[in-house]
Amino acid sequence: MTNSEKALKLHEEWNGKITTTSKCKVQTKEDLALAYTPGVAEPCKVIAKDEEAAYKYTIKSNTIAVVSDGSAVLGLGNIGAKAAMPVMEGKCVLFKEFGDVNAFPICLDTQDVDEIVDTVVRIAPAFGGINLEDISAPRCIEIENKLKERLDIPVFHDDQHGTAIVVLAGVINAMKVTNRQKETSKVVINGCGSAGMAIGKLLLRYGFKDVTMCDINGIVSKDSEGLNWAQKEIAQITNLRNAKGTLADALKGADIFVGVSAPGIVSQEMVASMAKDAILFAMANPVPEIMPDLAKEAGAKVVGTGRSDFPNQVNNVEVFPGIFKGALEGRASAITEEMKLAAATAIASLISDEELSDTNILPAPFDPRLADTVAKAVKDHI
Amino acid sequence: MTNSEKALKLHEEWNGKITTTSKCKVQTKEDLALAYTPGVAEPCKVIAKDEEAAYKYTIKSNTIAVVSDGSAVLGLGNIGAKAAMPVMEGKCVLFKEFGDVNAFPICLDTQDVDEIVDTVVRIAPAFGGINLEDISAPRCIEIENKLKERLDIPVFHDDQHGTAIVVLAGVINAMKVTNRQKETSKVVINGCGSAGMAIGKLLLRYGFKDVTMCDINGIVSKDSEGLNWAQKEIAQITNLRNAKGTLADALKGADIFVGVSAPGIVSQEMVASMAKDAILFAMANPVPEIMPDLAKEAGAKVVGTGRSDFPNQVNNVEVFPGIFKGALEGRASAITEEMKLAAATAIASLISDEELSDTNILPAPFDPRLADTVAKAVKDHI
Repeated sequence: MTNSEKALKLHEEWNGKITTTSKCKVQTKEDLALAYTPGVAEPCKVIAKDEEAAYKYTIKSNTIAVVSDGSAVLGLGNIGAKAAMPVMEGKCVLFKEFGDVNAFPICLDTQDVDEIVDTVVRIAPAFGGINLEDISAPRCIEIENKLKERLDIPVFHDDQHGTAIVVLAGVINAMKVTNRQKETSKVVINGCGSAGMAIGKLLLRYGFKDVTMCDINGIVSKDSEGLNWAQKEIAQITNLRNAKGTLADALKGADIFVGVSAPGIVSQEMVASMAKDAILFAMANPVPEIMPDLAKEAGAKVVGTGRSDFPNQVNNVEVFPGIFKGALEGRASAITEEMKLAAATAIASLISDEELSDTNILPAPFDPRLADTVAKAVKDHI
Repeated sequence: MTNSEKALKLHEEWNGKITTTSKCKVQTKEDLALAYTPGVAEPCKVIAKDEEAAYKYTIKSNTIAVVSDGSAVLGLGNIGAKAAMPVMEGKCVLFKEFGDVNAFPICLDTQDVDEIVDTVVRIAPAFGGINLEDISAPRCIEIENKLKERLDIPVFHDDQHGTAIVVLAGVINAMKVTNRQKETSKVVINGCGSAGMAIGKLLLRYGFKDVTMCDINGIVSKDSEGLNWAQKEIAQITNLRNAKGTLADALKGADIFVGVSAPGIVSQEMVASMAKDAILFAMANPVPEIMPDLAKEAGAKVVGTGRSDFPNQVNNVEVFPGIFKGALEGRASAITEEMKLAAATAIASLISDEELSDTNILPAPFDPRLADTVAKAVKDHI
């Protein structure tokens, strides 16, 4: 049986990967009178007077929604709400297993930005946070921004910020390995979707000065045509020399490459044209922009991918469980830029100087310290 | 500590009465590759081709939403979405504990009928059924009707139909005890809200011919003023003699009284004016329309209440877990009138002729046969 067949068979056996479980047993009429009517009226009355008490008496304290419209699911594209469910259930499993955060999948039967925003706002009373997932760009950015304005609970688009945080964590350690400084390192990001743009913005906020975005048409500049509003915005703060050309042009002399793009599009020649001991995060999945052995052969010093079968796996599962664990425990009303930077730094710091090497820049995704480490970074910046 | 204080303290300890639980452990990268990416893509692709496969691979097969806008919560009135959460969580607990149905609370931050309908339609992909709860009348009827039109999963407003089904079950057995026939029995229902109207409609559908509704202004007739659209509809099919007057007038010679109204509004004189060996369901909670001992003293033969400390508790927990258990197991696309009648008859049949008496017309709410019995009745009528 192939792994695909095995996955399908297991999904049939699971028949839904999560269940709801009662914390209170109801075996006698006394139980019923406390968990349900008439006793349940007491917490209702307290919350009716003071909405904050919802955190004391309801699942709002420890439950998030994993929200998708199914418009950009994994590598599958726009497959719609029902077909997106297995992914969202899987995400809920990861929130629970890695961060002890209760999560419920909300797959929306609409792809209209305002309808999505209105719907999430209306169902928010039950939830302490909203994790957006697999929504196509730039709609995902618009949806996240609008929800942040209208809700007083944290809203976090993991495909953007989870990815950006774990990339920054890896970059921090890769720079240590290669003796680089953020102020003087030249970064090229290939892929100008939600993840790529979020990575660019977070690296700039961390203190990088020289970041160039590329897309399928090559280097993104203020003069590029066909950019969406979000790409136009990022074109204002990246590629400040207003360079033009191909990805190959951009990579000449670059210190760091971050790919969230397509398999095999980086050649050994391109790597050889980069600065000595270059850093590459080739995260196209399952086939990276360049295979690690080829990149190393061409002169790269540190290579990360999205895959678990190579060193330096860059996986946002290192991030999102801890982000919401910390946000819920600390009752954060938003996930701020400071929290994101602190989370990245905290993840990087889990690799001691003694452990640090070109093949060990990030903790393993199953490192049991991760969720609490990220959660603490979030809580320290509320 | 009073029971109220105890309930409040327990709700604080629970800090949310349900959790989400993972069916699949994720302890190795192999686990991760099967439950999440890349393996999860397989069920996604199958569902993208055939939406019905959602029932095979996702929680849709066994999960319902408990939806409220907080507009008519228990005896508390319009307390809003957040304050309604403890009740909805409690309902989810009951679905799970009594029917092994996974249920998640959706409390809506809107009380606009169309916004509620749109929102529920949009979040429906994750769910195999929608249980509406504690929504004020007649909005609840409008919402249920609109959702039934737009969704292909069962929609059930428990306050209406759960109550009506258990009342009918009790009525069936109370008629046996008192040797009555539905065709010749005169029924008076006091309370013309969602529950009262649903009871009236179900009794008519069961075969009663003479049903009179009363509200705070007395007997409801075609000529009554101030009725909402739903009350106007039911005024067309009840009180066919077009009687006018008070509740006391209506009760003269009546065989069966069903109260979903207010404490203490039925006097002993009124009971004495009813037919010999009258049947009373005095379900105002916690204080019934008339206390059972007073009703009996005045000549009633069978008295049911909503309370667990008197005989003949009439509690819709006997109904709703089995309704959705059966609907989900049988993949019903709606809860039909036939299912409701079958469920009532099935509940009534759990009391054998030997067991049947004026103080034993309904199984106890904790009777372990209930959920499967109701579920079977539903499945037999799909």
